[in-house]
Amino acid sequence: MESTYTVTGMTCAHCVASVSEEVRAVDGVTDVVVDLPTGAVTVTSSRVLEDARIRAAVEEAGYTFAGK
Amino acid sequence: MESTYTVTGMTCAHCVASVSEEVRAVDGVTDVVVDLPTGAVTVTSSRVLEDARIRAAVEEAGYTFAGK
Repeated sequence: MESTYTVTGMTCAHCVASVSEEVRAVDGVTDVVVDLPTGAVTVTSSRVLEDARIRAAVEEAGYTFAGK
Repeated sequence: MESTYTVTGMTCAHCVASVSEEVRAVDGVTDVVVDLPTGAVTVTSSRVLEDARIRAAVEEAGYTFAGK
């Protein structure tokens, strides 16, 4: 399944890499695609994920989780 | 001695880290301080450095050397 979240604060490819790495480490996540201009983070997972897990990963990377 | 260069394209702390790392690896460089808002990169060195060495390091990091 796939969910798209909005993350703010990403300004460059390094930011995209940091967010992708943290979100990809969440249990159940199989793919992460980030669109830098819009801040859209599309997460593919093998099962339903709690949004709080994604929020925590985004914040761990140092960015702001702005919603689903 | 100390020289200040201008680098464009840095947008976040990761960019600062990338530029700092490459410039610090230039032979003779003892310290690098980057001011993100202005793009000022202040390089302290134990001897006179060719500007071309700093330019090469900045470009290696993926940014633009905009002058001294």
